[in-house]
Amino acid sequence: MKNAVGREIPDELLVGGREVYQGKNYMDGKYIKKASPCTKRCEKPQESKIVDSIAQALRDCGAKDGMTFSFHHHLRNGDYVANMVMKAAVEELGLKDLTIAATSLGSAHDPIAQYIEDGKVIGIQTSGIRGRVGEVVSGGKLKTPAIIRSHGGRPRAIEAGEVHIDIAFVAAPTSDCVGNCRGIGGKSNCGSMGYAMTDAKYADHVVVVTDCLVDFPNMPASVEAIDVDAVVIVDSIGDPKKIASAAARISQNPRDLMMAENVAKVIASTPYFKEGFSFQTGVGGPSLAANLFLEKYMDERGIKMGWAIGGICGPMVELLKKGKVQKVIDVQDFDLDAVNSINNTPGHYEMSASQYANPANKGAFVNKLDFVVLAALEVDTDFNVNVLTGSDGVLRGAPGGHPDTAAGSKCCIIVTPLVRGRMATVCEHVVTVTTPGDCVDVLVTDYGIAVNPLRPDLIECLDKAGIAHVSIEALKEKAYSIVGRPDPVQFKDKVVAVLEARDGTILDVVREIKPYTFEG
Amino acid sequence: MKNAVGREIPDELLVGGREVYQGKNYMDGKYIKKASPCTKRCEKPQESKIVDSIAQALRDCGAKDGMTFSFHHHLRNGDYVANMVMKAAVEELGLKDLTIAATSLGSAHDPIAQYIEDGKVIGIQTSGIRGRVGEVVSGGKLKTPAIIRSHGGRPRAIEAGEVHIDIAFVAAPTSDCVGNCRGIGGKSNCGSMGYAMTDAKYADHVVVVTDCLVDFPNMPASVEAIDVDAVVIVDSIGDPKKIASAAARISQNPRDLMMAENVAKVIASTPYFKEGFSFQTGVGGPSLAANLFLEKYMDERGIKMGWAIGGICGPMVELLKKGKVQKVIDVQDFDLDAVNSINNTPGHYEMSASQYANPANKGAFVNKLDFVVLAALEVDTDFNVNVLTGSDGVLRGAPGGHPDTAAGSKCCIIVTPLVRGRMATVCEHVVTVTTPGDCVDVLVTDYGIAVNPLRPDLIECLDKAGIAHVSIEALKEKAYSIVGRPDPVQFKDKVVAVLEARDGTILDVVREIKPYTFEG
Repeated sequence: MKNAVGREIPDELLVGGREVYQGKNYMDGKYIKKASPCTKRCEKPQESKIVDSIAQALRDCGAKDGMTFSFHHHLRNGDYVANMVMKAAVEELGLKDLTIAATSLGSAHDPIAQYIEDGKVIGIQTSGIRGRVGEVVSGGKLKTPAIIRSHGGRPRAIEAGEVHIDIAFVAAPTSDCVGNCRGIGGKSNCGSMGYAMTDAKYADHVVVVTDCLVDFPNMPASVEAIDVDAVVIVDSIGDPKKIASAAARISQNPRDLMMAENVAKVIASTPYFKEGFSFQTGVGGPSLAANLFLEKYMDERGIKMGWAIGGICGPMVELLKKGKVQKVIDVQDFDLDAVNSINNTPGHYEMSASQYANPANKGAFVNKLDFVVLAALEVDTDFNVNVLTGSDGVLRGAPGGHPDTAAGSKCCIIVTPLVRGRMATVCEHVVTVTTPGDCVDVLVTDYGIAVNPLRPDLIECLDKAGIAHVSIEALKEKAYSIVGRPDPVQFKDKVVAVLEARDGTILDVVREIKPYTFEG
Repeated sequence: MKNAVGREIPDELLVGGREVYQGKNYMDGKYIKKASPCTKRCEKPQESKIVDSIAQALRDCGAKDGMTFSFHHHLRNGDYVANMVMKAAVEELGLKDLTIAATSLGSAHDPIAQYIEDGKVIGIQTSGIRGRVGEVVSGGKLKTPAIIRSHGGRPRAIEAGEVHIDIAFVAAPTSDCVGNCRGIGGKSNCGSMGYAMTDAKYADHVVVVTDCLVDFPNMPASVEAIDVDAVVIVDSIGDPKKIASAAARISQNPRDLMMAENVAKVIASTPYFKEGFSFQTGVGGPSLAANLFLEKYMDERGIKMGWAIGGICGPMVELLKKGKVQKVIDVQDFDLDAVNSINNTPGHYEMSASQYANPANKGAFVNKLDFVVLAALEVDTDFNVNVLTGSDGVLRGAPGGHPDTAAGSKCCIIVTPLVRGRMATVCEHVVTVTTPGDCVDVLVTDYGIAVNPLRPDLIECLDKAGIAHVSIEALKEKAYSIVGRPDPVQFKDKVVAVLEARDGTILDVVREIKPYTFEG
């Protein structure tokens, strides 16, 4: 069946009440009976929950074939924990038919690809999928289609019972002996632990893996001891250099700066740019650089930002310290400036993934967002965005909070160069729709700006401010005139990944890649 | 059927798997499938959830006959919110057959007694029950037996689905327009909002009632907007003078001070009194005064307290500020010193009732507690404590955290004068067992100290320290020698309240009072 973004969704996926994407806010106002875990009653006081090894923790939690283990990605590409757990599960306990429900998987998790090829891991649910795992899934090696969700879609799916986590593993920079965890105070600090929070509340069992045991009580706890079954102390949970970079640098690339300035101009032209406005931006070159120009416009108008959310990095912390933003609330920290600031700089708070972006709670932060500035791998003429599959069709990206912030914000701006190398970024049809076009408002490229025709109000704003803009078709033609019209990517029939819209409907599917053959 | 504290529990109450009390830690290690709410999906951004009136919020949440409404008691005897809500429900919406699930009810809620007499309110679930509500329940006017739970038993029952909250009402000193609530920053501050947290997570609907609207986002939120359906702004949520007293005063009564010094001596004689020990005390005269003497012993030994929990008041905040306790974690604040300190003084944190005391999670704070010092209305020779019914059998007390801290702590000390007026505090059989004797370790009175024979280790400690102690029977006989052996309280057959043990078994029942008749 064709969905609202024109993608053909195989009927065999539409079982158990699953629907195809019907457009923004389709599920609004419906009621949901939340799922719940089956958990152990610890009435008798325990002095400590520390066990000797991950294998022991797995055994204590009744780990068996067919279970779903969850992981979070605050340690980003420095994470050691998912690999250690999967190694213990597969190699020490001999488990099989496992599903990994991660908030993101990257090249740090390359060793897991082998477990997929060996048929030990048969399911993957994640937001990001990169590196070897992306390659083997795209190559059709995973037994069941991977399920790709946004950061808000994940807690929604957990609360809906669509993902039931048997054991959640929490990679904790610090923990006390009963499992109160924090993202700071240790040697592998990550700051916010927002993505782990829903997992810990909905998993049957929770295992904390830490490399820094601290005195009880480790407060304020991001994951609370009342949800934790076992604590394992390891030498190292991750590589600090890859967990948080020294500092996110603002691009000095003139093309990036030009686009960033245009993003700021667009923002300043709208009625939402007023005292107390709210803002989120990514950490990519032009997105992050937008901070710089935005500050200039804020100063000119004599206004301050009310609050910012995200993934947070240094430049936003800087604005907070200068008093130019009142509050920063974050689900993940990208650099050490942000890690060292959270729960420390007044006004800098942690939030859960559900608070951040869940479309099925009673109103996430994204629902109050004025502006979001986001990157894209591809944008098509219906304003659909792809941030998941490369131009070769291989899984190597992450919807992350992209679909959530786009849907919730009043003004979603995509900023991207028109072409990258020999690939057109603006195109006829994106390889995979990860953020539907009805959630995207403005596209800023180095060759011009386009506004979604669904937003005549914003077109009027740009016109009034004298900001030139063109049709997205014109941008696409320009891109094709530079790099040529691309051949369609070739896929086999097998669906290797299902791209879930944040509301749980199916937005797109990714099929097994077919090695390119020259048909001359 | 007779239970482990010798109380006869009527068979008709033992339905649906309900058991009689079997002793401490009976439920340890069992698994529970948690309950869950049915909640509305708010996918479409809402700028505000403010509605015009409590009646409107009730209508929006689908309020109807037979529902259960929940309230929390952080505004203590100054609370206006429960009365306002019940008035709107009964008088404006004409609802009936309602159940009130409150964390405590006091004389502030006298108007609700009329709704019980009128048959509009047919169920009461609470920890504390005092004033007119206690009288009418004891008088047999409530259609179903009231259910009395401890502060830890309540979140357990909610998570077990034994209490299903249709609408939770949150009395919020501050809220933003979408329902992020805090206990500070307004004109009716209460500090911690720990008792409201579980309610907000498990109720189908949540209504915030505030008298101080603040800018979004009101962080860090005690109750989160993601759980809130509606916000109602009223002139006043309570009487600040009755919410938090100016400062909890330490008793100057020489008898109280003597008992307090003996409590400190007992504490200092145990092996748990060492660097980093943990402590909770009540705010009653001798309990609170124990702080003073404890500090002296800490100084003498050159040790510091690791952490304290509770209900917190000024003297503990003072110890925190002096660096004599490292961390204070609280579920409720009793005076303005504590209200102004929480989330403000470094090391002073808020916790939920589940974190505090729930016996069915994976380990509450009480499970790590070394010492608790508690008061009592009566203690019997089996060390059973009554803090619920007066000597006339009328409901006028509150188990609160008493049974939870007694069960979890390594050393539970009850401190009480031997007689009060013409009543023996130490007696043959307490009117109602609210904390079972197997959880109570030491009794300190103004006529001597008794140690529970279940704790020979503590008897040895006291002997080594040269602290005189006697049998509890001797204390009882002394009490009877002073005030005489009391006539048993006379009750009718009807059960008016069920006293649930913290694990959900039945500890005791309270029957309808019978006016005293002289039989000469």
